[in-house]
Amino acid sequence: MSVHAQEASLTARESDPRVMGWMQGVPPAPDKRISVAAGDFFAFPKSRWSVCHMRELFPTIEVSRGIGAPVPLDYVPHHEFADIRAEIDALTFTPMDGDEEMTWAESLAANYTDGILILHKGQVVYEWYSGCLSETGQHAMMSMTKSLVGLLAEILVAEGRLDDDAPVTDYVPELADTAFGSASVRQVMDMTTALAFDENYDDPNADIWAYSAAGNPLPKPPGYDGPIGYIEYLQTVERDGRHGVAFGYKTINTDVLAWIVARVTGMTYTQALSDMLWSRMGAEQSAYITGDAVGTPFAGGGMSAGLRDLGRLGLLLLNEGVINGERLFPADVVESIRAGGSRRAFARAGFDTLAGGSYRSMFWVFHNDNGAFAARGVYGQTIYVDPAAEMVLVRLASYPKPKNALIDPTSLPAYQAVADYLMSSRSKYP
Amino acid sequence: MSVHAQEASLTARESDPRVMGWMQGVPPAPDKRISVAAGDFFAFPKSRWSVCHMRELFPTIEVSRGIGAPVPLDYVPHHEFADIRAEIDALTFTPMDGDEEMTWAESLAANYTDGILILHKGQVVYEWYSGCLSETGQHAMMSMTKSLVGLLAEILVAEGRLDDDAPVTDYVPELADTAFGSASVRQVMDMTTALAFDENYDDPNADIWAYSAAGNPLPKPPGYDGPIGYIEYLQTVERDGRHGVAFGYKTINTDVLAWIVARVTGMTYTQALSDMLWSRMGAEQSAYITGDAVGTPFAGGGMSAGLRDLGRLGLLLLNEGVINGERLFPADVVESIRAGGSRRAFARAGFDTLAGGSYRSMFWVFHNDNGAFAARGVYGQTIYVDPAAEMVLVRLASYPKPKNALIDPTSLPAYQAVADYLMSSRSKYP
Repeated sequence: MSVHAQEASLTARESDPRVMGWMQGVPPAPDKRISVAAGDFFAFPKSRWSVCHMRELFPTIEVSRGIGAPVPLDYVPHHEFADIRAEIDALTFTPMDGDEEMTWAESLAANYTDGILILHKGQVVYEWYSGCLSETGQHAMMSMTKSLVGLLAEILVAEGRLDDDAPVTDYVPELADTAFGSASVRQVMDMTTALAFDENYDDPNADIWAYSAAGNPLPKPPGYDGPIGYIEYLQTVERDGRHGVAFGYKTINTDVLAWIVARVTGMTYTQALSDMLWSRMGAEQSAYITGDAVGTPFAGGGMSAGLRDLGRLGLLLLNEGVINGERLFPADVVESIRAGGSRRAFARAGFDTLAGGSYRSMFWVFHNDNGAFAARGVYGQTIYVDPAAEMVLVRLASYPKPKNALIDPTSLPAYQAVADYLMSSRSKYP
Repeated sequence: MSVHAQEASLTARESDPRVMGWMQGVPPAPDKRISVAAGDFFAFPKSRWSVCHMRELFPTIEVSRGIGAPVPLDYVPHHEFADIRAEIDALTFTPMDGDEEMTWAESLAANYTDGILILHKGQVVYEWYSGCLSETGQHAMMSMTKSLVGLLAEILVAEGRLDDDAPVTDYVPELADTAFGSASVRQVMDMTTALAFDENYDDPNADIWAYSAAGNPLPKPPGYDGPIGYIEYLQTVERDGRHGVAFGYKTINTDVLAWIVARVTGMTYTQALSDMLWSRMGAEQSAYITGDAVGTPFAGGGMSAGLRDLGRLGLLLLNEGVINGERLFPADVVESIRAGGSRRAFARAGFDTLAGGSYRSMFWVFHNDNGAFAARGVYGQTIYVDPAAEMVLVRLASYPKPKNALIDPTSLPAYQAVADYLMSSRSKYP
């Protein structure tokens, strides 16, 4: 039995929120309700409903698509679509943990997939929804939220508005007396800062929970005397070691980077994201992001968006800044990301399923033969860009456990199988 | 000095949220922050920021526009637009309180207008934004939210799916032991139920505050032992007097009606609203609605939407169910609303600025020469439909005080002046 199967007592089908009946009926029966007050809204299997309903649980800030017409995605011709889907569904691969061969179709259930979109040479070849998600819904992006901050920062660097070699304090002097006071913008972008900040989600005393408590927009519980909001918290972080040596995956880097983006653009981070990307890529839906009690968006992980709009982001990354025939940012931006960060620094962080990879500007770079790189978020979120296969793959999921190390074994080889298929078999389609 | 000037110490310009600096800067300075925790987010002048940012203060449910292309509103030709605007701005009228003559342009500031849109014969002739609002923003509709519930109910009646003569309990048996147990659907639609429910917002002990506390989606304060959510509250309401005699403007009727709509359609109220109207009228933006801790939308007043989309609703009402060349509901629906409710029942409620009017299906009917009717919400919100003048006028505002009786004197005569202008002077435009 593989890792993923051991972790969950309910299968994807059994835990489908429609099967569970969460929030169905007016009013929902008491045992079918999900609320923030109950505290368990992100515990499996309730999490499988909550990932599509974050705005119903928390205050949120809109990432506006504007009010123009969306630009529909291109699709392969209808008669090819069903064939390609059947062929992809039947693809087989061997999971990384050496488990038995699995088909692509089986991997969707194994990974508790809520939605998957595959684009090849700019055309949708595969689109599938399950669980709480539909084409008009939005899904939590989790840490894929970070990659958008990294992307905006790279755009500002390419435009000459942000110097990634400069100290953080050139942009945010308020951080002078913190760990970030001695770091460069690039170290923050690549998360090679040395921070006294523990992000082990399994430890209830880890700093990440204090950070989360500071950022929670709900009124603080009686006796709470910690920082109010993300920005106050960031000003308390101390250094632990030497910057630039090791990759340390710590969400607070992203919120510092979003603060820098806000300072450089003179807008809130959310406005900058809408202005620079979301309102210019033909998006079908506005996205949204949770925020703290003083209006700071949770740039480290609070965004929700539609599956197809994340496909548009993937196309922008694959096509080096061009979508719908329009260039939104210089090609240098993607070149910088794709080149990756320090593999040596990354190796020290122990991401076993990503051995040989690196982290650059809030993206994960695989350094594989295809030059693939990805935005990734816990519980199985990814925008996976494979330049050699000219493939963009977006998966939104609600795996029972957060760690992608549990989900990668049945995901990364599956993505490679699809890439191989697209590079070879798909050549029969003109 | 007129009533409106006495009420406010800051003018519209002085209290403009951009002038006040609310939530500007990253992070905003402590004295520029607006939050739910502080409790005063809807006190003037902070209210002038909050009306455009409800989703940033509370959890909200999307009223989806879908993902198709919006249908742009028609505009009068560009060269006419400026002329008409100048002519409307210069229109004069005498306020209802007999105050000195005022121009239309002066009335916008007097009423703390955030956005105004005027359509004549289906074309936009006037569009203006101020304060917190822009063409891509959304604004609290307050009790205009109710009119959408009434409209959906009328559609269901016209479609033969809802019997407005039937007892409420035919649809919601859970209300049998309450005041609503002896009421008809029509009495709820027209608010002629006799309810032991005090909705005087100026009295801190009024029932409306207990209702608001039940519906607040934030965790309940320690010691709270009242109902959880709107629906639990509705099941506690007792009768006071005889149904059908007097109009009693009580928000809880609307939430009962939304519950009925949900039962008839088999959807949540929010889904029904998107399905029947919002996704079918070419809307530019999704709207949203606040909800309680168990996911029930606040159909009595929690919705926010864009100015132009409310113009689309107005067109649907003016054109008896037709927009963009498509019929969304039978003409009977608007006929029923326009005919009005009992003027005798209305007269008992003491709405002095609306003397001679009535209330029907959650709309206000003026019974004036032009056959005008309106959706209305506190702090100055309106969708004003004038069939004789073929005019739709939408105003979103953030007047310092909630009562429309304070705002009507400089509003209703101004609307009539514009209607008169459109019926006469506008005839020179082909």
